Amino acid sequence: MSSHSIQYYVQWGDTDAAGIVFYPNYFRWFDHAALEFLRSLGWSLETLKTQFQLVVPIIDAGCRFQQPLRYHDLLTIETTATEVRTRSFRLEHRVSRGDEITGMGYEVRGLARIPTDGENRLELVAIPKPMRTALLER
Amino acid sequence: MSSHSIQYYVQWGDTDAAGIVFYPNYFRWFDHAALEFLRSLGWSLETLKTQFQLVVPIIDAGCRFQQPLRYHDLLTIETTATEVRTRSFRLEHRVSRGDEITGMGYEVRGLARIPTDGENRLELVAIPKPMRTALLER
Amino acid sequence: MSSHSIQYYVQWGDTDAAGIVFYPNYFRWFDHAALEFLRSLGWSLETLKTQFQLVVPIIDAGCRFQQPLRYHDLLTIETTATEVRTRSFRLEHRVSRGDEITGMGYEVRGLARIPTDGENRLELVAIPKPMRTALLER
Amino acid sequence: MSSHSIQYYVQWGDTDAAGIVFYPNYFRWFDHAALEFLRSLGWSLETLKTQFQLVVPIIDAGCRFQQPLRYHDLLTIETTATEVRTRSFRLEHRVSRGDEITGMGYEVRGLARIPTDGENRLELVAIPKPMRTALLER
Repeated sequence: MSSHSIQYYVQWGDTDAAGIVFYPNYFRWFDHAALEFLRSLGWSLETLKTQFQLVVPIIDAGCRFQQPLRYHDLLTIETTATEVRTRSFRLEHRVSRGDEITGMGYEVRGLARIPTDGENRLELVAIPKPMRTALLER
Repeated sequence: MSSHSIQYYVQWGDTDAAGIVFYPNYFRWFDHAALEFLRSLGWSLETLKTQFQLVVPIIDAGCRFQQPLRYHDLLTIETTATEVRTRSFRLEHRVSRGDEITGMGYEVRGLARIPTDGENRLELVAIPKPMRTALLER
Repeated sequence: MSSHSIQYYVQWGDTDAAGIVFYPNYFRWFDHAALEFLRSLGWSLETLKTQFQLVVPIIDAGCRFQQPLRYHDLLTIETTATEVRTRSFRLEHRVSRGDEITGMGYEVRGLARIPTDGENRLELVAIPKPMRTALLER
Repeated sequence: MSSHSIQYYVQWGDTDAAGIVFYPNYFRWFDHAALEFLRSLGWSLETLKTQFQLVVPIIDAGCRFQQPLRYHDLLTIETTATEVRTRSFRLEHRVSRGDEITGMGYEVRGLARIPTDGENRLELVAIPKPMRTALLER
């Protein structure tokens, strides 16, 4: 399966009054990691929007938090496609600090037409074959 | 089981360039809903910190996103304790807009001594009996 | 001049590892206070967008921070229109905790057509007369 | 005067439903740019905290926003110390996209003992001579 990793220094604004990272920030990092992963496969948001009028909505997301993170910790977030279904795919995000895994997250995403204001529902479309192939290649 | 709900208007800053809520914000809302739920039971962060030197770290969190949310949508987030174990408890967060459920999230949290700078691990302590009782009461 | 105030409890996620509010959050509050102020005058973003295809871009913003804020502090943010020019208006935001002023901020905003993707510049339009009147009324 | 610059790609989560950057994010970038600037001079937050028990509170901040920014724009934020007073210093942040300046911000910061929970006021201390020298050198 395809994978991609980014590095990130924990910023001061990511912390809270317990002196550790405020957990919703993990999901900001996961969103960023997911979009950079897709970009590395040739499927940036710009390409998806301009050529296909598609966005990449989130269907499900979660994380197990194993170690607290602190200001200026250097993180590696490794993103791997672990499943591709007809209308969705699953990414797993492994967060590590040096040799230590500090969290394991995932996202399930789909593709949908860019929503117009009147719409209250996103209609998922089939993952195009070349994108499926790119997600699955090793 | 105990439950508590808050209401929230989606703010402009919660949205992204797709015109809908940027999903990590759900977890900011869940963190807030969890702390207000604990406060409603008499276990505010201030009480936990001042009387017990405890914080309430996150162990696991997730959400299924069922409907996109837009600016100024009025949400109800209903938080229910669904499981209390020796060193952790599970909260479920149901996000609805009017009669429509738009997302279902959860958090697993524990209690730990306030971390000092040298510590890289949070040691979970047993949930005190009165807090356990408060979480479980109906 | 018109004014409007909102109340807000500082959330846990607003704080940083110094135990006080991370300052960029003030501007999230100011954005919210500004939009609620405009809503109170009958000029919500929804009205501006639907009836006039306008957004309310920021031109200038700033804040003097007088006192640190902590988790669960109850704040009042009072927003007042202090100047209305042809293509912009100035709002002042006074942040207080009880009797104590803790910060003084401002925003200068204008009105512009909703930007399309190709545009790199927002063209400000004249403030409509009824909006000008609403901003100036006492 | 000393200066330092960072580069940043606008993230999806920085945007709002107008398709452009939500302005409070500029101040998150400025906070990060300021701390990296101080780090480049040998005065990281870690050094200030461990060796001097000091934090770097914000006193004043502001920005003029000249051009809207979009997803994946590559920004340069150049930070320059423009004034050093007894108990405060001023940083200016120039945000540019290629050759085009898109915003001009500033921060006035001081140094203060790390606040304890009882304190509602941060007492500013004199900027140490070597830090003053580092800020002023060209």
